[in-house]
Amino acid sequence: MKMSQLLGLRFKETPADCQIASQILMLRGGYIKGVGNGIYSLFTPTKRITQKIEAILRDEMDRIGGQEVMFPVTLPADLWKESGRFESVGSELLRFKDRSGNDMILGMTHEEAAVHLARNTAQSYADYPFMIYQIQTKFRDEPRARGGLIRVREFTMKDAYSFHTSQEDLENYYKECYDAYHRIFARVGIPEVFAVKSDSGMMGGKVAHEFMLPTEIGEDTLVICDECDYRSNMEVAPCIVENEVAPDAELEMVSTPDTKTIDELCELLKITPKQTCKAVLYRKEIDDSLVVIFIRGDLEVNEIKLRNYLKSEIRPENADEHESDITYGFIGPVGFNAKASIIFDRSLIGTHNLVTGANKTDFHYIGFTPERDIPSPIDFIDVAKTYDGAICPICGKKSIKTIRGIEVGNIFQLGTKYTDTMNMRYSDKNGEMQTPIMGCYGIGIGRLAASVCEARRDDYGPIWPISIAPWQVHICALRSDNPLVAETANRVYSELLAKGVEVLFDDRPVSAGFMFSDADLLGVPIRITISPKTCSRGVAEVSLRDKSFKQDMQLDTLTDDIRNMVDELLSKFSHEAVMTR
Amino acid sequence: MKMSQLLGLRFKETPADCQIASQILMLRGGYIKGVGNGIYSLFTPTKRITQKIEAILRDEMDRIGGQEVMFPVTLPADLWKESGRFESVGSELLRFKDRSGNDMILGMTHEEAAVHLARNTAQSYADYPFMIYQIQTKFRDEPRARGGLIRVREFTMKDAYSFHTSQEDLENYYKECYDAYHRIFARVGIPEVFAVKSDSGMMGGKVAHEFMLPTEIGEDTLVICDECDYRSNMEVAPCIVENEVAPDAELEMVSTPDTKTIDELCELLKITPKQTCKAVLYRKEIDDSLVVIFIRGDLEVNEIKLRNYLKSEIRPENADEHESDITYGFIGPVGFNAKASIIFDRSLIGTHNLVTGANKTDFHYIGFTPERDIPSPIDFIDVAKTYDGAICPICGKKSIKTIRGIEVGNIFQLGTKYTDTMNMRYSDKNGEMQTPIMGCYGIGIGRLAASVCEARRDDYGPIWPISIAPWQVHICALRSDNPLVAETANRVYSELLAKGVEVLFDDRPVSAGFMFSDADLLGVPIRITISPKTCSRGVAEVSLRDKSFKQDMQLDTLTDDIRNMVDELLSKFSHEAVMTR
Repeated sequence: MKMSQLLGLRFKETPADCQIASQILMLRGGYIKGVGNGIYSLFTPTKRITQKIEAILRDEMDRIGGQEVMFPVTLPADLWKESGRFESVGSELLRFKDRSGNDMILGMTHEEAAVHLARNTAQSYADYPFMIYQIQTKFRDEPRARGGLIRVREFTMKDAYSFHTSQEDLENYYKECYDAYHRIFARVGIPEVFAVKSDSGMMGGKVAHEFMLPTEIGEDTLVICDECDYRSNMEVAPCIVENEVAPDAELEMVSTPDTKTIDELCELLKITPKQTCKAVLYRKEIDDSLVVIFIRGDLEVNEIKLRNYLKSEIRPENADEHESDITYGFIGPVGFNAKASIIFDRSLIGTHNLVTGANKTDFHYIGFTPERDIPSPIDFIDVAKTYDGAICPICGKKSIKTIRGIEVGNIFQLGTKYTDTMNMRYSDKNGEMQTPIMGCYGIGIGRLAASVCEARRDDYGPIWPISIAPWQVHICALRSDNPLVAETANRVYSELLAKGVEVLFDDRPVSAGFMFSDADLLGVPIRITISPKTCSRGVAEVSLRDKSFKQDMQLDTLTDDIRNMVDELLSKFSHEAVMTR
Repeated sequence: MKMSQLLGLRFKETPADCQIASQILMLRGGYIKGVGNGIYSLFTPTKRITQKIEAILRDEMDRIGGQEVMFPVTLPADLWKESGRFESVGSELLRFKDRSGNDMILGMTHEEAAVHLARNTAQSYADYPFMIYQIQTKFRDEPRARGGLIRVREFTMKDAYSFHTSQEDLENYYKECYDAYHRIFARVGIPEVFAVKSDSGMMGGKVAHEFMLPTEIGEDTLVICDECDYRSNMEVAPCIVENEVAPDAELEMVSTPDTKTIDELCELLKITPKQTCKAVLYRKEIDDSLVVIFIRGDLEVNEIKLRNYLKSEIRPENADEHESDITYGFIGPVGFNAKASIIFDRSLIGTHNLVTGANKTDFHYIGFTPERDIPSPIDFIDVAKTYDGAICPICGKKSIKTIRGIEVGNIFQLGTKYTDTMNMRYSDKNGEMQTPIMGCYGIGIGRLAASVCEARRDDYGPIWPISIAPWQVHICALRSDNPLVAETANRVYSELLAKGVEVLFDDRPVSAGFMFSDADLLGVPIRITISPKTCSRGVAEVSLRDKSFKQDMQLDTLTDDIRNMVDELLSKFSHEAVMTR
């Protein structure tokens, strides 16, 4: 393609309201254009990138026995009523009525549609296992769209659904898909992606993994261990602490005026937050009842773990919302007698001599030792967020580190949540009716493209891996008004096209600086610069966008050499290449 | 792929509520599954067919300089308010509100989105012309979904938008696209598709063509001339009649009791409908005013032509809706004095001695000669549907024929309807601001697949052209429990896959009859049958689905021979092959 025909503006200025580098570069490079909040049109370079990602996804899905199908974007609400999600999912599910007044939704995930397609079809055990997948538009009415294609409302997703006759078979297939996902991320150029255990959220099921690209701008907090292979999403990571032995002291109420916060309290008593036992209050959405968590003062509550323990959605207590005799700011376990579920976090196991609220305005207890001062035996529950320096649940060392990451894929062992509620059955070898077991496996295409941009770039633009680059070769014809340059560049362009190379040819009458900065923004891996100077020496300058190579190459063998260079670069991203890593 | 793993049921029974053959075959063959009214999931065979159609579309669009982009499915209503279509389009446009209460729509066509993407980008004449296209899901809340994938509510469409700086440039490009469309239909296997002039409907613009596949189950009526190349959609075809000379007679009122219909009148007076002048009544939606059309009694009103003439949507008059002193059933031009717009159709030019209503219950005039009996000069308007035997507007012979067809594509010269309302401008060579001129070009992918099925089938199933067939080769292994058959079939399967042939391998332990009827329903062009008998003779039976070929072929050279056969069949559908037709 010739640059003179490529639609899209490239510019130097940082656009307003940009949070992250990939968003800035994709706007500045003419990749995307915002149409509405979290809704984008894609210019040709992005479309070419996403098509290549999709081809890699299809290849890896087909290799693990997937068959591509297509579900609708618009779905009758009835299907989601069958599974119960029409009611249970919040307003990120877009509900609407069609012209006849029927309830409908925009698909944000397609478990229901997958069961609908398969349930009258796979009726015998002999039809199992199978996996169906699609690459399709989805809509999630995201309250916090941000970061360009990283978090949007409309997106294209590869979503796959597998069906099995035993948990063991699901687990085996889950492992195959897990490996395929690692190959996919390696093939699109971000082999550093790793999997962490995660919460299954609204999808249901017990085991789930997220594939995470480590990056400072990530929305997720990941928990890793430097001493062993432990990797987890913060959401589900256990928090294991070892409390230092402290001398016991007597429980005593002391006056602590104006100490509503831990910091004020520590300031007054000359202690650290670790030496306190604080109270954190929530309400269960299910029955609006109060939940009080007592936790070591330096730690935070992990709301996902709390929600899963309580089996209810929760919200932070709002003191103004209910009338109560709770002494906010001075709550403690001793003498607390408001109506509430009380939870002691595991961080309090073995603690001694803490400071905690006395349930009386401007008073705290000192010398609090939970297992001594609480009369009944305490059932400690793990609801704290883990932290840097906590104990690794696998190797037991104090080596937990938290880092940030972008979720670029996820896989779930769904179990029978959907097949059961939607009444999908098959007859087993003995003619008995059974419920199939499902797994599901998702990758967002646009987010993946933006994540690669985030991870593979310099100050001047993206450095696209050749496996997904919009073009393989970028010809810069400097001084295209020079007949020799024009003739040479056009010949190289035609020859490369004839050899099946994907070429972007900058044929515009613009300055070298302008041309190179556009080329940097387009991030094509191989650049060929042709100028009056190079022509006079019978060469072209060939360089790689990642700056690892720059060399004059003879014009007479140039296009063969470039074809070979493309093949060699591409070969590093093949299925076979990443299999042997 | 192995049949034992392919999801989808195939069966013999005709499903309920089916209107047309392609719908029956695509349901019986495990191609599609209804999810809601006019909303389908696609099984793997259909997905493979549509992907091949999409590849052909991309190839032909790229060859005429198109660049692929992607617009959103969900669009802020603001864009459609800019163009005026948020208000002007009826309830087939799905409107909804997002979680923040913003008006949004589901894209049913993307002119607004195309202008939005291009308007800040193509600001200089040097950026023109260009064409952008996408292949994307659309939703049209169709009141009359029918015929499987022929008329649906959710569908995938290739839609293209070109932008020009002169009408001449648009017309040249329109012609290029017109030719590309003919190549596309030839390449997917229905070269009989022809273009007709059509009404531009809600798209606006003056010149438009529809590409029509002639078929009895078509929803459109086409007007063709057997004597010349004239082709038109009924919607816009002029109706040209030659009235026989009849003797004049005196205008006379006669009693015609109980003759509310033309048939009853003709019966009583022993005349033919052609000898009458009837009245057809409509209301304009724009101001609810009455319109009376006088037309030769054997003809019908073409509502599209009438709507375009009146520049208003219309509806048939409902006698119960308004109070009036109109004598329904006995309306005629002489003495008609209700408040209404009066239109005389061109079919009345030169008529003499007609029977027409006397505006008095149970009375008609005889001897009515319009140009004599109507005092003021009549401005005859063409609002009649043309008919078999009418006069061709091109060659002038009485050779008009009407046939049925499915619309498989359409192209429009839009002019500046969208660029103007949406304020898209560029600076011309003199630095003056100008408004670009647009064209748009659409093809529905699912409808095209179903149309090919409708046109290329026999009683047993579709006969897919190899260019879009779900697989190229179908291996039927009869008695796969026989070790020699199993070994041979597996070897042929692996060799063909290694040679890049797309193979469906029926490895199931089912009877020959069952296997062949499934193969017929899947419609794969080349079939290889391997049985104990063929193996013992060192051959396989090779046949074509269209029954034009059936022959034993030696096993030792089979896979090379099949590879060649595939290439030869494919070559007939290449761009180059259809260019030389």
